[in-house]
Amino acid sequence: MPVNLNAPDPIQLFPVEGVRIGVTEAGIRKASRKDLTVVLIDEGASVAGVFTQNRFCAAPVQICRTHLSAGHGVRAMLINTGNANAGTGEDGLLRARSTCNALARLLNLPPTSILPFSTGVIMESLPVDRIEAGLAAAVADAKADNWLRAAEGIMTTDTVAKAFGVQVVIGGATINITGISKGAGMIRPNMATMLGFMATDACVAPSVIQQLARELADGSFNRVTVDGDTSTNDSFVVIASNKAAHAPITSLESADGQMLKSAMLQVAKRLAQAIVRDGEGATKFITIQVEGGKTPEECRLVAYAIAHSPLVKTAFFASDPNLGRILAAVGYAGINDLDQSKIELYLDDVHVAHHGGRNPAYREEDGQRVMKQTEIAIRVGLGRGAATDTVWTCDFSHEYVTINADYRS
Amino acid sequence: MPVNLNAPDPIQLFPVEGVRIGVTEAGIRKASRKDLTVVLIDEGASVAGVFTQNRFCAAPVQICRTHLSAGHGVRAMLINTGNANAGTGEDGLLRARSTCNALARLLNLPPTSILPFSTGVIMESLPVDRIEAGLAAAVADAKADNWLRAAEGIMTTDTVAKAFGVQVVIGGATINITGISKGAGMIRPNMATMLGFMATDACVAPSVIQQLARELADGSFNRVTVDGDTSTNDSFVVIASNKAAHAPITSLESADGQMLKSAMLQVAKRLAQAIVRDGEGATKFITIQVEGGKTPEECRLVAYAIAHSPLVKTAFFASDPNLGRILAAVGYAGINDLDQSKIELYLDDVHVAHHGGRNPAYREEDGQRVMKQTEIAIRVGLGRGAATDTVWTCDFSHEYVTINADYRS
Repeated sequence: MPVNLNAPDPIQLFPVEGVRIGVTEAGIRKASRKDLTVVLIDEGASVAGVFTQNRFCAAPVQICRTHLSAGHGVRAMLINTGNANAGTGEDGLLRARSTCNALARLLNLPPTSILPFSTGVIMESLPVDRIEAGLAAAVADAKADNWLRAAEGIMTTDTVAKAFGVQVVIGGATINITGISKGAGMIRPNMATMLGFMATDACVAPSVIQQLARELADGSFNRVTVDGDTSTNDSFVVIASNKAAHAPITSLESADGQMLKSAMLQVAKRLAQAIVRDGEGATKFITIQVEGGKTPEECRLVAYAIAHSPLVKTAFFASDPNLGRILAAVGYAGINDLDQSKIELYLDDVHVAHHGGRNPAYREEDGQRVMKQTEIAIRVGLGRGAATDTVWTCDFSHEYVTINADYRS
Repeated sequence: MPVNLNAPDPIQLFPVEGVRIGVTEAGIRKASRKDLTVVLIDEGASVAGVFTQNRFCAAPVQICRTHLSAGHGVRAMLINTGNANAGTGEDGLLRARSTCNALARLLNLPPTSILPFSTGVIMESLPVDRIEAGLAAAVADAKADNWLRAAEGIMTTDTVAKAFGVQVVIGGATINITGISKGAGMIRPNMATMLGFMATDACVAPSVIQQLARELADGSFNRVTVDGDTSTNDSFVVIASNKAAHAPITSLESADGQMLKSAMLQVAKRLAQAIVRDGEGATKFITIQVEGGKTPEECRLVAYAIAHSPLVKTAFFASDPNLGRILAAVGYAGINDLDQSKIELYLDDVHVAHHGGRNPAYREEDGQRVMKQTEIAIRVGLGRGAATDTVWTCDFSHEYVTINADYRS
């Protein structure tokens, strides 16, 4: 059961001119399942991506990087579930290139204008035949008003499709922004989540699209974790189709640039948080805010130490205010000159620890009350400076073990 | 159910002259449970300890460090379960000192000759009254032949007491070596385990006892992990009572020094591995050997990334050879210039991955056969150099979640 996460509202999924999506059932791993998605992009769009920092990155990630730097412009994306095409060596690269070539022939485009994405089981051969056989049906299905099907088409262990959209007005033009994402395990993105795609019809100069993708990822997908496992396939792509009737944005610091980025960040955050809300076995959504650090980086280090502690996560699952476990995680996060006597800990509005020890006014029943909620904020004060950072995570339940013990069966 | 771990064999627990142990039920957290242990040490022993690197170290750890550096010699240790006295601020220090003072009065010793140790729940007040009331009974119980009761007396979520001993002959004298340890969660020691104590009647010069303790910890407790949570209370103490009739060891590089260290390391390794075998919810004992690194440090980094991955651990629990998850962990371990095409992966004798991809000769049923065992060796080749390192861990089961969701209740 996802935590306070509803199915996407179709009315909020705005078609983006210049971007069409088609989905089909190719039988890649299981029958009767949407598992192959194509995204067709009109000529002239600005496209950028950020990818996993895992050194064992998947074949499609390697090809995306090459194709994005080839400079031919991106005209299509090809996304399959059921197989990650990671840990597949040279053969995996050949197979990913083969699928790009097949779609390129169908669309009469150079293969380097295609970006491939795969998600699913690692270290198994990509079934190229099934994917290539499904391409024609996926392309035939392509239309602008297809975001919900696309969100469904990229799901793996996700229980709910993830798609959000907003509209803003820039230079008198109504701008559409729509995105989709998928989780739900092997989630500790380092540069981007498992898979996230956003599109807008706004006009964004090619010179700033990479910066925009990077800043959106840093404010969203790079701040969530389910299990601390950085995937081999994490990819996040931003498409600006440049169709809207306003002056192109050439700087993210301009008024229009800030407006667009802020609106897109709303969607990116909701997509990223949706992955946590639908995290494998999640029963609680936890916001971890660390304040009073010397740098945002050390705040993030502490936040991730708390977010990854199996002891903290199981205590939240049990609604047990065994909050000393949070202090322990703060202590081993990696700040060498941490002064434990300056640590403060709050659970929502409840002041749990003061000067590194139990707050004398803290009552167990107050901690218990907050722990029973499905949305909980942990706030840690380090007493070292003015920096702050925030990470979103979920708890760790029996269901996580069940899902991951049975994933392939 | 611990993994291939039997209750201690009393015949192998050799009394160590100059060291007497007493245990009692002080009712610290629960009634009718051995929870208070004293270790009385004759004058003239060499004693050293290594302690947690967690910056939120517990009050007793802080006091141990102070007392060890006071130079009065260690004459007694005081160990309680049921309460970690961590995250307790200034008040926790006062309470720990109070218990040391009480035992010092009873034994007519300076308080700085007492080392205190606590393990249990974090951020709750140490019940000083109950501990002090139990001291007389613990001291009255003290005898040399009491290692088994001591191993039982320091258990928390452990299901089996952990104690081992060996004898060696040095300079014609039979040397006794006996040790005890306890786990079973919040185990990713960084300098020492939750609690580990070893004693020998060998003669070890005070100038090398600290080096001996450090090297024993590095070869044993610093190579195990259950859940990656470095405890606030990790402590490992080595006592040489200097009673045996041989020339004192003044260098660990001497023949006698190597003999003693090698024998003590056998016991330390078994104590450390016992913690993993009895890890919370463990059903499998996993040895992770990483070879071909540039340095032992980077090998250990990779081994710990594998050992801490919830996805790897749940796959082992399920006996599912979903071994791509191991490659993913290798990829995010933190070696920036890792060449994935050089990675080799073996599961016992089964060659799973070759040149970073699935070994063409690998058959799923071979992986399956090994995964069903209770003792499994993972071997990773990095193809970067000649360094190697080994870490021991366990799998991640429903039982871990159950134990940690209910620990305090």
